[in-house]
Amino acid sequence: MADNNSVLIGRKPVMNYVLACISLFHGGASEVLVKARGRAISRAVDVAEVTRRRFMPDVKVKEIGIGTDQLAPTEGHDTPSNVSTIEITLAK
Amino acid sequence: MADNNSVLIGRKPVMNYVLACISLFHGGASEVLVKARGRAISRAVDVAEVTRRRFMPDVKVKEIGIGTDQLAPTEGHDTPSNVSTIEITLAK
Repeated sequence: MADNNSVLIGRKPVMNYVLACISLFHGGASEVLVKARGRAISRAVDVAEVTRRRFMPDVKVKEIGIGTDQLAPTEGHDTPSNVSTIEITLAK
Repeated sequence: MADNNSVLIGRKPVMNYVLACISLFHGGASEVLVKARGRAISRAVDVAEVTRRRFMPDVKVKEIGIGTDQLAPTEGHDTPSNVSTIEITLAK
C-alpha cells in the first residue's frame, strides 16, 4: 500500500483524522492505514471506530498491528526510550 | 477463555499490569486478555509490548480487536456517549 494512503494521528481533534480517512477512500483508496505512537494510540482507535461506525459502514478493520519504536537519546535523556505504536488497516 | 485470565487496564503504572500478565502466565494461563477503554488504550498497548519484549519473549500477540462501548446517560450528559475499546490477546 502506498504511503499516501496513511493517516498519521497527532494531537488534533478526532474528526480531522476521520475526514482524512473518508477523503482517501472517496479518492479511490481501497485501504487506509491509521498510524499512531504513544498517547495518540487511543485517538487512532477512535478514528477507526468513528470512520466505520458513523460514516462508512462498508469499511472493515482488516488488520491491527502493535509495536515498539526506540527513540534516539535527546538532551536530558541519556538513554534511548521506547514508545508503543499501532497501525490499523481499514479496508473497503 | 475464562474471565480470570483478563487484565483490565486502568490508571495505574504500566508495570503493575505487566506484573499481572506475567503472574497469569506463570500461574498456568496459555492466553491473557489485556482490555482497556478510552485513554487507557495506549497503556494497554504499552503493557502488551513491555510484557513480551522485556519479560516474556515467547509470548506473542495472537489477536487484537477494537470496538465501541456506549455509555449510559449520566447527570450532566443527557445523551449516551461512546468510548472506544481494545482487547489484546497475548498467547504463549
